[in-house]
Amino acid sequence: MRPPADLETPLLLLDEARMQHNIDRMQSRMDALGVRFRPHAKTSKCAEVVRRQIAAGARGITVSTLKEAERFFAAGIDDILYAVAIAPAKFAHALRLARAGLRLTLLVESVAAAEQLSAFGMAEGHGFDVLIEVDTDGHRSGIAPQDPRLLAVAAALRTDAAGHGARLAGVLTHAGSSYDLRTPEALEAMAEQERAGCVTAAEALRAAGHVCAVVSVGSTPTALSARHLEGVTEVRAGVYVFFDLVMAGTGVCRPDEIALSVLCTVIGHRAENGWVITDAGWMAMSRDRGTQKQAHDYGYGLVCDADGRPLPGLAFDAANQEHGVLQWAGGDEDDGRALAERFPLGAQLRIVPNHACATGAQHPAYHLLPAAGGAGDELPRWERFSGW
Amino acid sequence: MRPPADLETPLLLLDEARMQHNIDRMQSRMDALGVRFRPHAKTSKCAEVVRRQIAAGARGITVSTLKEAERFFAAGIDDILYAVAIAPAKFAHALRLARAGLRLTLLVESVAAAEQLSAFGMAEGHGFDVLIEVDTDGHRSGIAPQDPRLLAVAAALRTDAAGHGARLAGVLTHAGSSYDLRTPEALEAMAEQERAGCVTAAEALRAAGHVCAVVSVGSTPTALSARHLEGVTEVRAGVYVFFDLVMAGTGVCRPDEIALSVLCTVIGHRAENGWVITDAGWMAMSRDRGTQKQAHDYGYGLVCDADGRPLPGLAFDAANQEHGVLQWAGGDEDDGRALAERFPLGAQLRIVPNHACATGAQHPAYHLLPAAGGAGDELPRWERFSGW
Repeated sequence: MRPPADLETPLLLLDEARMQHNIDRMQSRMDALGVRFRPHAKTSKCAEVVRRQIAAGARGITVSTLKEAERFFAAGIDDILYAVAIAPAKFAHALRLARAGLRLTLLVESVAAAEQLSAFGMAEGHGFDVLIEVDTDGHRSGIAPQDPRLLAVAAALRTDAAGHGARLAGVLTHAGSSYDLRTPEALEAMAEQERAGCVTAAEALRAAGHVCAVVSVGSTPTALSARHLEGVTEVRAGVYVFFDLVMAGTGVCRPDEIALSVLCTVIGHRAENGWVITDAGWMAMSRDRGTQKQAHDYGYGLVCDADGRPLPGLAFDAANQEHGVLQWAGGDEDDGRALAERFPLGAQLRIVPNHACATGAQHPAYHLLPAAGGAGDELPRWERFSGW
Repeated sequence: MRPPADLETPLLLLDEARMQHNIDRMQSRMDALGVRFRPHAKTSKCAEVVRRQIAAGARGITVSTLKEAERFFAAGIDDILYAVAIAPAKFAHALRLARAGLRLTLLVESVAAAEQLSAFGMAEGHGFDVLIEVDTDGHRSGIAPQDPRLLAVAAALRTDAAGHGARLAGVLTHAGSSYDLRTPEALEAMAEQERAGCVTAAEALRAAGHVCAVVSVGSTPTALSARHLEGVTEVRAGVYVFFDLVMAGTGVCRPDEIALSVLCTVIGHRAENGWVITDAGWMAMSRDRGTQKQAHDYGYGLVCDADGRPLPGLAFDAANQEHGVLQWAGGDEDDGRALAERFPLGAQLRIVPNHACATGAQHPAYHLLPAAGGAGDELPRWERFSGW
């Protein structure tokens, strides 16, 4: 599992076997819970990754931008949920995608959005499928399950006699505050809060006479912690496909299940400070410091050797744009060798990221790690896209 | 200076007039100080921006990756300094660029790198021009001016009878710790420390019989604070071209001189929390929180209206991947109007970034703001590149 020694770095490594393990783990859990699984493709932004999620049993995907919808539709995915409340300036883009044949579901969280999308659909002669965003943990947008605005938004979704406009397809929630939890008990409770809140919203809509077919919940920690999902029709999760140190900090994965790392090279030393300088700075890692508030703060990432074995003696505490500054703490492993001998100029290191979505976004492609047994001259490359 | 209302956001806005003002300010300062100016193109990664820096009087550019060297050489820039200590796996790439006609200067900071590059140049029949990295503020890599390793590295740079190998061209330093300073006096002192340290290193090399033609210093804050640059031959600076909130925090620019902002759109509200939700999250802003340690912590950026006027009542305190959460503090400006009336669904806002290099890197292009007087239907677009 060691990459070739002559690679120009930094570059993003993907351990395909670990990724497949993560995909299979989530899909079998969803199958056992009896729900449809719609992975969030914002993590990978890569058609090759999504194809493997679909092959494992996912039905449709979730996206966070219309560019993701466009790219994945072009790659053959025809059922996509755009899970960010839509702004009016994006209606025309959504319409183009729907007219091209994409089964696109949109999200609203206000009467204003429901009214404007309904009017746009009627004027353009198209019927949009729409979910209402429900807030179950107070961390972002959405309407609380008991808030009377929920019924007002549903009432503002209207279609004309021809079915053009915007029609209620269901409700959606995302318990993003699960990322801040640390124990199986707390995660299980949050999963139940997410489920119960979303089902309550669906029932309130149904009691008012609305059809509410879709009840969509999810985040990686809650999806992996829910005991049952009664009343839920589909689950969404994104970062599980690679996992990362923040997820390991919540306890839903082990560090050795993380499929992504950044390969970098030693470019210098400052012996008097115990520093090893590499060519992976914040541009290669992102500025994400998501483990800062967790029990173990990994700085800019977990430093490993070229084979992926953690080097706990090296802390990644500081970064410039194209420089990583690793601080040697040594400890038990310090056998007295000089830093420059232990990690010589040109030596490769691998950095496991805090946040897979953020680190991935800094790179144009994934480079696939060879299976155990040896590396070829060049690693297979899967392109990823970025931007809006 | 208001962008068209129907733009799909988020997108990166560039105020060309402000940029030109910043370019002219730095160039006239460098001209007055009597030094060559070699701007750092890692900030813009855009040929159109660099062309304007060259047109104003810059001679050559600085880059932080060989991809930048490659792209800017393809765009017609033929004198480039790669200002990160080079790793052996990058020698072949550097050689390809030099053989294609690029005047490429490399950087080393160790005997090992000097020896390996010399051997590579001799084996390949090419003579590399090399600077030695000098450390003048202890913040990253480089060799202290009085450290005997300086002479050892110079001695390890060797050429054969044909001039192939690696030859000393000079010394380089970057006082990056200037970003942490706050007063003109401290910045002026740091500029002098940077200058004096680099000149001392050059003199030590010359005293040992080496030719040391180039004495290259710089960072945006020190370049704008130096009283004199005796003994210095060239200055490098990058972020000055756009400026950002971190630079404003050091005092070297005003917030209204910052040329970059991210245009975003209101997609929701949470009235009970005083939140306005936008479609610019950390993916559009980057995770850079560079003002956190400054006198004014701007969160993820300074919120402005669509015309670029600051809205101090709105703080950008939290971000998800594609959601920005703005907190309304109101205060004197709070005339009792509801948030959703003041910042309705679909309203545009502009966010001035903490760190221009980091925010720019999240975007595929700059969209040029129309000059005062009105906007056309579409903003001119300058592409920027990313990756390695």
